[in-house]
Amino acid sequence: MRKIKLKIPATVANLVCGFDILGMAIHEPYDEMEFKLLETPEIIIRHKDSFGLPEKPTENVAGVVLLKIQEYLNLKKGFEVIINKKIKPGSGLGSSAASAAGAAIGANELLGNIFTKEELVYFAMFGEELASGVKHADNIAPCIFGGITLVKSSNLIDIIPLNSPDLLVTAVHPQVEVKTSDARQILKKNILLKDAIEQWGNIAGLVAGIQNNDFGLIGRSLNDVIVEPIRSILIPRFNDIKENSLELGALGGGISGSGPSIFMISEKEEIAQKIADMMKSVYNEIDIESFVYVSKINPSGIKIIEN
Amino acid sequence: MRKIKLKIPATVANLVCGFDILGMAIHEPYDEMEFKLLETPEIIIRHKDSFGLPEKPTENVAGVVLLKIQEYLNLKKGFEVIINKKIKPGSGLGSSAASAAGAAIGANELLGNIFTKEELVYFAMFGEELASGVKHADNIAPCIFGGITLVKSSNLIDIIPLNSPDLLVTAVHPQVEVKTSDARQILKKNILLKDAIEQWGNIAGLVAGIQNNDFGLIGRSLNDVIVEPIRSILIPRFNDIKENSLELGALGGGISGSGPSIFMISEKEEIAQKIADMMKSVYNEIDIESFVYVSKINPSGIKIIEN
Repeated sequence: MRKIKLKIPATVANLVCGFDILGMAIHEPYDEMEFKLLETPEIIIRHKDSFGLPEKPTENVAGVVLLKIQEYLNLKKGFEVIINKKIKPGSGLGSSAASAAGAAIGANELLGNIFTKEELVYFAMFGEELASGVKHADNIAPCIFGGITLVKSSNLIDIIPLNSPDLLVTAVHPQVEVKTSDARQILKKNILLKDAIEQWGNIAGLVAGIQNNDFGLIGRSLNDVIVEPIRSILIPRFNDIKENSLELGALGGGISGSGPSIFMISEKEEIAQKIADMMKSVYNEIDIESFVYVSKINPSGIKIIEN
Repeated sequence: MRKIKLKIPATVANLVCGFDILGMAIHEPYDEMEFKLLETPEIIIRHKDSFGLPEKPTENVAGVVLLKIQEYLNLKKGFEVIINKKIKPGSGLGSSAASAAGAAIGANELLGNIFTKEELVYFAMFGEELASGVKHADNIAPCIFGGITLVKSSNLIDIIPLNSPDLLVTAVHPQVEVKTSDARQILKKNILLKDAIEQWGNIAGLVAGIQNNDFGLIGRSLNDVIVEPIRSILIPRFNDIKENSLELGALGGGISGSGPSIFMISEKEEIAQKIADMMKSVYNEIDIESFVYVSKINPSGIKIIEN
């Protein structure tokens, strides 16, 4: 019986000014998933980690994706999946997307690569729907395509893989809870046209900078005048972390997903590491436990590490 | 005495979803300007055309740009400029920007190329200020840099020249008046966040499409959900022109600047020409005179044609 093992990266959605459209894969943290194809139509999910996530397939993010694939293909076979989750649920680093995208890629690999990447996104979005109530591809797309991705539309699955600039990402996950629903509700339904224009100037600059590997332009464009000023109040010491990071030489950064994780992009390993140390000590000062990750932008997304 | 002659292209600002940030140079129509350096500090402006534009330097778009350059350099020399304007004032095709940018480039050439392109934009914006009350670089930037340009900020003159895809532009100028002030006033100050997100997804797609020469992506991204639905009501038969163009095979298009000109982008000369014929006949039907132009996107902007 064929077995495979996947390494599934964390992802950063809502890339500063690219709220709801731009996401990015990183290397650290990452989940591992082991897959076995079963001759019976069972779906068996087991967790090696201790997050206490449900293992019943209809209640598990990976489970519902596998059930959808089974249903779509009218498949008489099943899957056994062992998940070793290291991307903490609720971190804002694409934990549910990792399980959902991993399930889609794992099943596809065992079935002989029968689906396109867009189809894998389609299936994986059922996992996101279970996790958050919304079928969105912001984290799934970079997880599957790698690098930085533009999700022009989740409805029509119009995903544009952008470039993957050779840059470092420092992410900190402070152990506080930010509910996605709160993060959504706090946003204003109406915004000023002049702010929107500033935002889309930054988005245009960011995409051009990403495509041209123009790091200066990326830095000048990593500026969110609409969402960050509101959502950042939910994250302790956000402004300090951001200001300190810029002083240490970060190109820019912001809230990862809907938080509470914060990420910062920089050109050099040395700067990325200094930012990591600073983040850790800022949260130590106020007795909030935190996890800090430093890695490059991940150009390839999910990797099959045992085949 | 050295004389030069410039060919200065029309420009399309507010490139569909890229309201206030993206502009594009085309080949047709274009202005001509002849420059002579004078040993006395006079500024002499003359028009070969019959638009009746003021020739007094302080009241002329080119004149104020030359006066600014003179003042900046404390220059004891002057300029004689003969303008043959073919880009009709009030067309929405960058007529004032052509005079302003032409003046800056012409003076710079006669003075031995002492300014950067950004500095030329800086001087040319004084001409736009005279014409419209606002120092903006939306048309000046593509006129000076060529191709498609992103103006991330007019205040700091942050201009990013994008690619110049090998595409055709059909533009129609119906002989109706749309005052820039009306076109501005009609816009709402507040917009829905969800519309803004759709718009910036399109902008991101458009910039990625332009940079990658992905014409399909350009077509899917040429969609403005914020400004066009409001401003288009000021332009007779806008919706017919747009729908017909898309049926004929246009990638997309919209209002040029603040109108009344409409432009459509297509991949093939044959389609661009069919769109031109259609535009002409739509306005003929309702007895509105119109001028139609077909040309490629202009990769180089202003050209010195006699030196």
